[in-house]
Amino acid sequence: MTVTDRADARPLSPSDPRIEPWRAFLQAHARITRRLDEELRAEHDLSLAEYDALLTIADAPERRIRMRQLADRVILSKSGVTRLIDRLVLDGLVQRDACLSDARGAEAVLTPAGLDRLRRASRTHLRGIDEHFLAALGPDDLAAIGRSMQALADRAGVDADG
Amino acid sequence: MTVTDRADARPLSPSDPRIEPWRAFLQAHARITRRLDEELRAEHDLSLAEYDALLTIADAPERRIRMRQLADRVILSKSGVTRLIDRLVLDGLVQRDACLSDARGAEAVLTPAGLDRLRRASRTHLRGIDEHFLAALGPDDLAAIGRSMQALADRAGVDADG
Repeated sequence: MTVTDRADARPLSPSDPRIEPWRAFLQAHARITRRLDEELRAEHDLSLAEYDALLTIADAPERRIRMRQLADRVILSKSGVTRLIDRLVLDGLVQRDACLSDARGAEAVLTPAGLDRLRRASRTHLRGIDEHFLAALGPDDLAAIGRSMQALADRAGVDADG
Repeated sequence: MTVTDRADARPLSPSDPRIEPWRAFLQAHARITRRLDEELRAEHDLSLAEYDALLTIADAPERRIRMRQLADRVILSKSGVTRLIDRLVLDGLVQRDACLSDARGAEAVLTPAGLDRLRRASRTHLRGIDEHFLAALGPDDLAAIGRSMQALADRAGVDADG
């Protein structure tokens, strides 16, 4: 195994202790989102990804959004968003509609039933965030996480040339 | 909208500023894992979930693991692990085998080609963790994240009755 091609000056070793915080970050995310998903399914028959999609549509002007924008904005399940919307349409929570400004585009529109389900589910979801995230963190930890995570999100959201 | 059923003493409001760190956490995770996924696909024709599964098998004794254990241990794509292994079998990176101790169980075994691909891909993956995670965090931030994330993971990993 040669160590070169695009490798930088200081290649990271798999045994570097700095990998532990990374693993804990992945593990925390996986476990918390799993809990939130289980609670939404049990109480509202919605997956966390479906909740995320409903909320994204609800936050758009007139509660309608082009499919492509929706895929950009949802945080979970970006690649599976078309299938996910199909399910929500079958359940009557979302309606597919021709785009108001461009007949070739499709839009997802929140139905009154969708808004109602989202509102009820949001109580469960907020309770879960409180229980599984906020309750484990003191105010200083929370502020530190907020700053660090924002820096990480900004950095990874920019197209870097490195 | 009544506010009761299982709601606790202090229901979290959607406008509570403490939700910002939560959103940043989700956003950071989504963007970083997307980057890592894109890099692995571009350089090694592996998704991040496939990499996670290969690494999990490689870390098991004799590089073989029962399918159910595999599903428990992978961090990403727990629900889709069977289909994911099908793809890795087709690519010759994993072999499906009868379980050594229980003929009814199936095991996933890493092939030499799988080990080779994993080793090469790990350079890309470690470089990505370095670039997209470690490089954005000072040592104090990193330590704080490690502690907080471990506390979150532990808490959400336990079956709580609350």
